[in-house]
Amino acid sequence: MKTESLVSAINASILSAIDLRTATLHAPTFNGNEMAYLKECIESTYVSSVGAMVTDFEEAISRYTGAKYVVAVVNGTAALHLSLLANGVGAGDEVLIPALSFVATANAVSYCGATPHFLDVDLRRMTVSAEFLDEYLESISTVNNGICINNATGSVIRAIIPMHTFGHPADLDGLQRVAQKYGLVMIEDAAESLGSWYKGRHTGTVGKCGALSFNGNKIITTGGGGAVITDDENLAQKLKHLSTTAKIAHQWKYVHDEIGYNYRMPNINAAIGKAQMEQLPGFISNKRELFNRYRQSFDGVDGVTLFAESPDSCSNYWLQTLLLDKSISDKRDQVIEGINLFGFHARPAWSLLNRMKPYALCPASDLENSIELESRIINIPSSSSLI
Amino acid sequence: MKTESLVSAINASILSAIDLRTATLHAPTFNGNEMAYLKECIESTYVSSVGAMVTDFEEAISRYTGAKYVVAVVNGTAALHLSLLANGVGAGDEVLIPALSFVATANAVSYCGATPHFLDVDLRRMTVSAEFLDEYLESISTVNNGICINNATGSVIRAIIPMHTFGHPADLDGLQRVAQKYGLVMIEDAAESLGSWYKGRHTGTVGKCGALSFNGNKIITTGGGGAVITDDENLAQKLKHLSTTAKIAHQWKYVHDEIGYNYRMPNINAAIGKAQMEQLPGFISNKRELFNRYRQSFDGVDGVTLFAESPDSCSNYWLQTLLLDKSISDKRDQVIEGINLFGFHARPAWSLLNRMKPYALCPASDLENSIELESRIINIPSSSSLI
Repeated sequence: MKTESLVSAINASILSAIDLRTATLHAPTFNGNEMAYLKECIESTYVSSVGAMVTDFEEAISRYTGAKYVVAVVNGTAALHLSLLANGVGAGDEVLIPALSFVATANAVSYCGATPHFLDVDLRRMTVSAEFLDEYLESISTVNNGICINNATGSVIRAIIPMHTFGHPADLDGLQRVAQKYGLVMIEDAAESLGSWYKGRHTGTVGKCGALSFNGNKIITTGGGGAVITDDENLAQKLKHLSTTAKIAHQWKYVHDEIGYNYRMPNINAAIGKAQMEQLPGFISNKRELFNRYRQSFDGVDGVTLFAESPDSCSNYWLQTLLLDKSISDKRDQVIEGINLFGFHARPAWSLLNRMKPYALCPASDLENSIELESRIINIPSSSSLI
Repeated sequence: MKTESLVSAINASILSAIDLRTATLHAPTFNGNEMAYLKECIESTYVSSVGAMVTDFEEAISRYTGAKYVVAVVNGTAALHLSLLANGVGAGDEVLIPALSFVATANAVSYCGATPHFLDVDLRRMTVSAEFLDEYLESISTVNNGICINNATGSVIRAIIPMHTFGHPADLDGLQRVAQKYGLVMIEDAAESLGSWYKGRHTGTVGKCGALSFNGNKIITTGGGGAVITDDENLAQKLKHLSTTAKIAHQWKYVHDEIGYNYRMPNINAAIGKAQMEQLPGFISNKRELFNRYRQSFDGVDGVTLFAESPDSCSNYWLQTLLLDKSISDKRDQVIEGINLFGFHARPAWSLLNRMKPYALCPASDLENSIELESRIINIPSSSSLI
């Protein structure tokens, strides 16, 4: 098949699904109470890290996800960083993360002085599988008194961070079982999966805690923002303490009992988040409908497959994903350029994290599937406003 | 003198100056284009880390301060952290900072894996003096090939961070001279001093770079926010790169060439900042007028002195500051409680940083003046809206 014909077929299928000649990859929608809540916030003068909007936003996330506790922070990276710190990840530890992820997952590990240890993902879910994790840890680690030691490096493997790629849930029950077997804490990178459910439970609530992101390109946005969700009260208190400079509560005294962070979400950003949460169910139904339209319009297009949720999951379809056939994956960049040239914003997955200069020497499993997926993934326009 | 009489005299003086029965320590004022710019921002859908408001806000700060480059970030702590990283501060280094400061100054140092080394401040400016710094470094360090080594620890002393306490400029020319003599880079903690000038130059522009804060309690606010200002183009590029996950610019490829941070200010916060910058001259003239009113009303009140700017400076008077006479400094907490009980929010300075648990074992000079000031400082209501 000629690359030109494939590009034409893809562009025609996108056009047929969304009925627009141009579209960005992901734009936010503000059709709710955003301006009303911003006005309330400005008029109250409470725009900073203390205010009713932060509480309202946290409560809305708690109600929606079913997580008992929510700590809103400045972004998803901060949510991951605090999740690791609050779970005792420290200097010299290793943390298992997928090689196929945004760089923030690795950066958060490195901020703790720990080392990311890269795992392959499976082709069906684009996330780390329980079977693979079990086999891999069996082959490279030893568990002593409930502590998992990397045989090659001698370091403690402290945690695993499954990431719900493009919104599609990982096999959380399986991963949790393996994590427990090896004494690892499981922290979910749910940055992309607000509104995605695994066997009826919200992503981020199966592990010890989950990190959400509300960056401008996410399913809801607060400008910049993130949150940690958890059912563990002590962990939630620790997270909040670390996010507010570890200051001991007092009307006017300034005492801080550990190294803390200025990570609390400002009230003004939470005002937008509160309005966005009210619209989240609509965003999700639009994004699921967009998937259905793409499924119809891409039906019969040779050379590409539309990635679909697993039967055990209900995905938010944050980013719609095409998989190029393996035989033509060397044409990926030409295809992406052809789509962008036409007027639709398309992009590949992230470059694998173990290829990045700061992470080139970190431990890694065989990454066969990740390498294959990296060469086959193309994300196409995914905004909820396209419906 | 009875503590009760002193409290009564202080409360009467505050009342006389501001003509209000209650007042918080510092509240922001939003009387400008805040809502208009927020609306513009929401309607554009650019609320996140790319957008015209960020550029406009940075340009407004550049015009106002005279700094050639401005990089807006999520808060003042992030501004300090990046300033240290971009100037090469790393693991094992020591960084000189005043013991009398907010904990963020020490935290930013510790995030780099470096150790804060605490300095005393002088009584006249409440900041580190050049004479003290020179004598201290002479006595505890050796300069080898332009590198300053702490004789006791063997560590490199890489940088000094003067902090402009409550908005009052440090003696920057003197400190810069000493910093150069010992091969230290000078980074200004100008978190409190937007609108404060030293010999006609804006604070933050004399050292290699300066860190500003726009937290809710600062002279202008963006909810949460900060910025680094500098005249050094390479440094500015490095700061921006580090603040945007160290991503190499490309339309759709994701390559990051070092460990970066998610520190860029969101457009929605910059929208407020742009409106606040338009009001800054008015805020400053109000705060300087408030000082004048306090000076009149506190004239003749025994036991307290109102802290005033140095003759070489023009201060923003961010927080109005009373100094208790030394003889009654043991009554500080009773006095503060009496003021708060009346209805005016008052507070002491921060507890000295070397008293905080995470910093208790860090190197420190003799801290005689800092200990004295800590026991004598009381901040009183300072909002520009009190005029």
